[in-house]
Amino acid sequence: METLVVGSVAYDAVKTPHGAVDRMLGGSATYFALAASYFAPVRVVGVVGEDFSDDDLAVFHRRGVCTAGLERAPGKTFFWAGEYSPDMNDRRTLDTQLNVFADFQPKIPEAYRGTPFLFLGNIDPGLQRSVQEQMNGPEFVAGDTMNFWIERRREALAETLRGLHTLVINDAEARMLSGGYNLIAAARKIQEMGPPTVVIKRGEYGALLFSGSRVFCAPGFLLEQVHDPTGAGDSFAGGFVGALAECGAADDAALRRAMIYGSVMGSFTVERFGVERLRGLTRAEIDARYRAFRDLTSFD
Amino acid sequence: METLVVGSVAYDAVKTPHGAVDRMLGGSATYFALAASYFAPVRVVGVVGEDFSDDDLAVFHRRGVCTAGLERAPGKTFFWAGEYSPDMNDRRTLDTQLNVFADFQPKIPEAYRGTPFLFLGNIDPGLQRSVQEQMNGPEFVAGDTMNFWIERRREALAETLRGLHTLVINDAEARMLSGGYNLIAAARKIQEMGPPTVVIKRGEYGALLFSGSRVFCAPGFLLEQVHDPTGAGDSFAGGFVGALAECGAADDAALRRAMIYGSVMGSFTVERFGVERLRGLTRAEIDARYRAFRDLTSFD
Repeated sequence: METLVVGSVAYDAVKTPHGAVDRMLGGSATYFALAASYFAPVRVVGVVGEDFSDDDLAVFHRRGVCTAGLERAPGKTFFWAGEYSPDMNDRRTLDTQLNVFADFQPKIPEAYRGTPFLFLGNIDPGLQRSVQEQMNGPEFVAGDTMNFWIERRREALAETLRGLHTLVINDAEARMLSGGYNLIAAARKIQEMGPPTVVIKRGEYGALLFSGSRVFCAPGFLLEQVHDPTGAGDSFAGGFVGALAECGAADDAALRRAMIYGSVMGSFTVERFGVERLRGLTRAEIDARYRAFRDLTSFD
Repeated sequence: METLVVGSVAYDAVKTPHGAVDRMLGGSATYFALAASYFAPVRVVGVVGEDFSDDDLAVFHRRGVCTAGLERAPGKTFFWAGEYSPDMNDRRTLDTQLNVFADFQPKIPEAYRGTPFLFLGNIDPGLQRSVQEQMNGPEFVAGDTMNFWIERRREALAETLRGLHTLVINDAEARMLSGGYNLIAAARKIQEMGPPTVVIKRGEYGALLFSGSRVFCAPGFLLEQVHDPTGAGDSFAGGFVGALAECGAADDAALRRAMIYGSVMGSFTVERFGVERLRGLTRAEIDARYRAFRDLTSFD
């Protein structure tokens, strides 16, 4: 089933212990769309500037992603620069230039409004809400948020949360949003805020799924080389929502499979810089890694 | 099959955000023995002082643990005091009084020398080696170590490692011992030092098994309340080695099951202070939590 993502399309400058890139395609909607494209037809709503190159647009098109909702505005594309710590568990933002993203007002094209699977990337919760209002009642809505909105836009965020089926956030954000340290208690509290399903990402340690009263733990995939963690969480979300859209269901079994496909996509992304690995995968490679996750976790 | 553990039997003072206890039964051999006792007959070699109480000795006997190798020496029992950080991921040692443990020279009783499963708790690697030399070729030898021995007794440790089937250490120790950050590379390097199997504990995130070229990931069990993390790692080791001893095998399937039983025992220990939870479990409770681990990790 079709999947729509609303979020940032950006240029990133990234420095890790394995190298540095001055300018490469990035942004939450980009990673999400490319990851989800291996599972379902994907549509992107976002904004880029006049500097956005045809080559980068072609990255979406080669993966069959529809960019009819990717607006081109006067000015420059959102730019982010960051540097990772030696163990890559922390990163420092060196520069953020919102550019055309500062005035982003998502407009959902008429043809997109019936899209059954929707992912609200990490943007102002008021804008997330406006996207939901423009849609014709999607079957499944997942969303992301971050510390900035939790601290400064708590009321708008509360309203957005009431409309979500699944919130996908990291452990620090779950603790901040719930006000507690324990992740079970944090998830329960967030479930009471609206979304019946909460996914908590734990970086290299994998991700947890809280679905009703059940819990599922997806491990982090062990890699000998992690080159660039940028986009791992958005790739996870793309694999997760994409896998649900592929089977058109969101029951417990489908959610668990989707957690593993999300982990698979995140694990590929970090193997190279930016979207380099993600843009050129095959479904056979993805399914082979899915089986590797089974081998990593199965016991009698 | 019978299992022998050599290590510390101690009194601990522990402070966590959930309370404080001035003096309670502790020590690596204690946690190991009680955890392993649910799976196999256990024998303890260690030393206590004149202050060691009959009530505490009875804790071992009620679990059927043989203490014929638990020497009583003039002086006081090893005492450790520590305080945990608010999130309980760090702890600070407030006091260490080695007492009778300072001159501990493990003597393996004649009747113990043929014990088929052996666990060398975290003591001087020279003493670990002397234990191995007193034994009549056990079928399976696992061992633990710590930063102190890695830094100061590297050569003696290298000799001990050559005699181990399995090394059970935590992630920070694995990185220190191997000199690298990546855990796959660290495990490979440690395997080259001797033990064909390496278990790396990651605290609340679970544990990894590197067995030949295969990897298995046991998740940390999610608990709403963690009261005292003391002894979790030693309880893990006790459940791990005990489960292997129970089935008398150490092939990949047995090792994976043992990883889960180890995780089960560690998860029980942290629910209460000291050995309170561990001393009074039933096998039915243990097997129910084993099934809960399956529910936590299984997917189509």
